Amino acid sequence: MSKRVGVVLSGCGVNDGSEIHEAVLTMLALDRSGAEMVLMAPDKEQMDVVDHRSGEATGEKRNVLAESARIARGNIRDVKDVQASELDAIILPGGFGAAKNLCDFATQGDKCTVDEGVQRILRDVHQAGKPVAALCIAPAILARVFGEEIQPEITIGTDAPTAAALQSMGARHRDAKVTDVVIDDRNRMITTPCYMLAGRISEVATGVEKAVDALLEMAKAGS
Amino acid sequence: MSKRVGVVLSGCGVNDGSEIHEAVLTMLALDRSGAEMVLMAPDKEQMDVVDHRSGEATGEKRNVLAESARIARGNIRDVKDVQASELDAIILPGGFGAAKNLCDFATQGDKCTVDEGVQRILRDVHQAGKPVAALCIAPAILARVFGEEIQPEITIGTDAPTAAALQSMGARHRDAKVTDVVIDDRNRMITTPCYMLAGRISEVATGVEKAVDALLEMAKAGS
Repeated sequence: MSKRVGVVLSGCGVNDGSEIHEAVLTMLALDRSGAEMVLMAPDKEQMDVVDHRSGEATGEKRNVLAESARIARGNIRDVKDVQASELDAIILPGGFGAAKNLCDFATQGDKCTVDEGVQRILRDVHQAGKPVAALCIAPAILARVFGEEIQPEITIGTDAPTAAALQSMGARHRDAKVTDVVIDDRNRMITTPCYMLAGRISEVATGVEKAVDALLEMAKAGS
Repeated sequence: MSKRVGVVLSGCGVNDGSEIHEAVLTMLALDRSGAEMVLMAPDKEQMDVVDHRSGEATGEKRNVLAESARIARGNIRDVKDVQASELDAIILPGGFGAAKNLCDFATQGDKCTVDEGVQRILRDVHQAGKPVAALCIAPAILARVFGEEIQPEITIGTDAPTAAALQSMGARHRDAKVTDVVIDDRNRMITTPCYMLAGRISEVATGVEKAVDALLEMAKAGS
């Protein structure tokens, strides 16, 4: 039986949405492993829209689900309509969208709150004993949702202030190299730094492939 | 010496810009082969903006270069500023952007015209004896720019009306399966169907990898 894996997107573009390479390479790794995908994103306005040439906010308004649909080629659902019972595992690619649209870590740091639909699906998947993976900055969401309760062991690479914020939310941070994957077996959580450290897309691919392999391995072990 | 390959983008999203998977997987294949990339796009307004949930035009205005910069993570140049002498080869991912923004094949069919900057760089790269690859619908651009002069052998898969339009512009169309690559050795052109036929991202990856391998092989043979 092929595994069904939820992929939570947050827009389309590293500066205001999903990091596109991380999202696409997650889809490739899942498809090559024979897994099915359930792509999802919150149906709400993005925190901001950034011109990716200049890095400056443009003042435009865009919808997170509509922009995520670009990566998903239209095949995407509102996160609030997805049930944990449909999934065997879930993965969150990074990009600033994970810290601006899925939660507000980008502006609130360790005082951040998580989008209600994203928090619910993550809690439900975890409570059902199914594994959760997060790439790049997305482990900040795991720190907020699960930190106080289960102190997951996670990584965002080596950035000390970001790591400190995750620890302050209750997570245990482990430094990791660009293609390292941190696996918390007890809590069934998997994280890898991707573009928190990567200088090349091939490094991202290696980290994502390892994370997806570990995620599917855990999903199979649990079934 | 690593090869420098131009990648011509046309926005960000299959319905109004570059097909995102094809663009990202092109970048991955080039990076894994040790090639350098020069990402470029025209600095002009998109033909339209499409909501990728519904497929409907939204009436918004977006800039092709600014949206392409999302895929490029900011590292992108105006196509009109790139010289063929900087490149060893060039590749055009597909998506409707190739047929709406790089040329107007989407609305004009075999009467289409090609963006001036795109036409110039393609002509210059080809005239310098360097190879050119095109994915998905992007071979329509090769048919327009080179069809009458050199009758390149190309593929867009098996879609008969599209193939007929390419032939009417002077190209010789060859039907191809989803992961087949059509190689025109004499004219140094490489094409593969990608999402003109693909149902899965892994099929796109296989076609792109074969096309990039063939492109780099030709670039090395020519140096």
